[in-house]
Amino acid sequence: MARIAVVAGDGIGPEVVAQARKVLDTVLPGIEATEYDLGAARYHRTGEVLPDSVLAELAGYDAILLGAVGDPTVPPGVLERGLLLKLRFEFDQYVNLRPSRLWPGTTGPLASVKPNEIDLVVVREGTEGLYAGAGGVLHRDTPAEVATEESLNTRHGVERVIRDAFARAGRRERRKVTLVHKTNVLTHAGSLWARAFATVAAEHPDIETEYQHVDAAAMFLVTQPQRYDVVVTDNLFGDILTDIAAAVTGGIGLAASGSINPERAYPSMFEPVHGSAPDIAGQGVADPAAAVLSTALLLDHLGHPDAARRVTEAVAAELAARTSGTPRRTAEIGDRLAAHVAS
Amino acid sequence: MARIAVVAGDGIGPEVVAQARKVLDTVLPGIEATEYDLGAARYHRTGEVLPDSVLAELAGYDAILLGAVGDPTVPPGVLERGLLLKLRFEFDQYVNLRPSRLWPGTTGPLASVKPNEIDLVVVREGTEGLYAGAGGVLHRDTPAEVATEESLNTRHGVERVIRDAFARAGRRERRKVTLVHKTNVLTHAGSLWARAFATVAAEHPDIETEYQHVDAAAMFLVTQPQRYDVVVTDNLFGDILTDIAAAVTGGIGLAASGSINPERAYPSMFEPVHGSAPDIAGQGVADPAAAVLSTALLLDHLGHPDAARRVTEAVAAELAARTSGTPRRTAEIGDRLAAHVAS
Ligand SMILES: CC(C)[C@H](C(=O)O)[C@@H](O)C(=O)O
Ligand SMILES: CC(C)[C@H](C(=O)O)[C@@H](O)C(=O)O
Repeated sequence: MARIAVVAGDGIGPEVVAQARKVLDTVLPGIEATEYDLGAARYHRTGEVLPDSVLAELAGYDAILLGAVGDPTVPPGVLERGLLLKLRFEFDQYVNLRPSRLWPGTTGPLASVKPNEIDLVVVREGTEGLYAGAGGVLHRDTPAEVATEESLNTRHGVERVIRDAFARAGRRERRKVTLVHKTNVLTHAGSLWARAFATVAAEHPDIETEYQHVDAAAMFLVTQPQRYDVVVTDNLFGDILTDIAAAVTGGIGLAASGSINPERAYPSMFEPVHGSAPDIAGQGVADPAAAVLSTALLLDHLGHPDAARRVTEAVAAELAARTSGTPRRTAEIGDRLAAHVAS
Repeated sequence: MARIAVVAGDGIGPEVVAQARKVLDTVLPGIEATEYDLGAARYHRTGEVLPDSVLAELAGYDAILLGAVGDPTVPPGVLERGLLLKLRFEFDQYVNLRPSRLWPGTTGPLASVKPNEIDLVVVREGTEGLYAGAGGVLHRDTPAEVATEESLNTRHGVERVIRDAFARAGRRERRKVTLVHKTNVLTHAGSLWARAFATVAAEHPDIETEYQHVDAAAMFLVTQPQRYDVVVTDNLFGDILTDIAAAVTGGIGLAASGSINPERAYPSMFEPVHGSAPDIAGQGVADPAAAVLSTALLLDHLGHPDAARRVTEAVAAELAARTSGTPRRTAEIGDRLAAHVAS
């Protein structure tokens, strides 16, 4: 039986993770889950973000389920670089997988798009680019100050994530991959991405391909999100595009993600795209849908596609049944989802 | 009387610029305009993108009006880096100004937003960041290939564009500036931007400020574009965000821009955000609205705010009068706009 580590984290993290675990325990009884106390609370209490010993322990699990980490009281970058990105990089989670669907029963902000018309997945590179942390500051707080950030892209890193995107497209109905970059300005990295894409595309003559500049893709995600199937892009562009994709499919409250090492050399990590939402934490009103959908991605990754499908269907049914009355509370939604997968 | 250089460019560029000039000549008779043949056509004919002698001549004008340059037959980057970005950098056009309004008579893609509710301007840095062109490729087309792109940010460059944003906010009704960056990941450049922003904000206690990560801003531009007044951000984030802002305000066909050197040490450049649209070029169906609105920004910059207002009002009236029947042709719209500013 699979062993997973659970990092509930801060804010609404523990509330939504509790529901995800209800659903997980119901659909796959006997899964062994161990809680790890990481995030803003631990940082304030002990000054620690991710001790090496904890990193080493986490490496032993089959997967990690994460709620949300972060709090305005922690300086920017400390938990992001020290915990989230550290895990993505250390565990070589190079496929950052973010599906977006406009679910039946939900309405997005776009007037012309109906449920089921949007069904796309962004395959975001997770271990390179501007997220490498390369850069620095000189002459701080003087008129001569300069600050740099460097985007590092390797053929190794770029080609493997593009391969993953084509493999996923091959398992989907529309079989289309869109590469998004900014080759007309970022000519060095853009050239590497475009050439690696062409190489992999040539091995998949059955898959339709297109290229778009990131600014055009950001626009089309708003005006014609229906046109996308699989989108593959770099770390920073993927960060931005997946929030647009979430926005046009009913908001970040429904957006799930996986940080995946497809070779399973390290544990993959599954987490809602939303943050810790300190403003509504502790009130029992957070929507656990994104955490539960992330659990479906986890089940899929662990080789339980049927369980994953049942969880996804439970969320779809719950969303379709949502009325315009008082929204259900976090725990009640979790109970209903668990009951649905049990039935 | 002002002297301007006109670069009509490729595709629909000449068609929309012709209408912009009709309007310009009507609202400010006697303006002296000299045409420059630059873009894909010249590149194919002579191999030249922007000869030094032309650059030197252009430096002598009060402003540049540009239609669109580019064609799929030119390799990515050649005209962008060699012409557009070259002009922005050589002429120190550090304020890339992009207003977005949901005009009366138009509908955007968002179900919940009504005309007049969106009225924002993005002040995008135009001479630094990832657009600097710093980077390279090693071990091309081998498994060891690496490609880099470097974002260069100076206190000088960042602070001056933030000052411009605050000055603009001070002349607007809502008096609010939103800084957009990614300080939690791009900690070096993010720190410089955040500190420079805090410095300038302290000098403007009457102006409301907020900070958002670029992914959140991309999302809120879709779900709540009404919340923004002035947005200040770096070169690449500004490129992406302004296309989203265009998308939620009726599309890129209405988006105007100015690449401005506020000190007037060099000519500023005004151009529609849209490209050369080779698919519809030569058919007389391109919408000249964005080119005409760019001309209004040019007039404003040259110290003719009344003329600028008349041009803007003509476009607003034309948009409000648009019916759902056959769209008017490019030249007819130009004639109507010119007649409107004349009346
Ligand atoms: C919190 C932050 C480091 C992270 C990112 O930028 O990747 C988040 O925005 C995300 O999308 O998972
Ligand atoms: C054509 C390209 C270089 C340019 C940019 O990225 O700045 C365009 O997208 C724009 O927004 O003006």
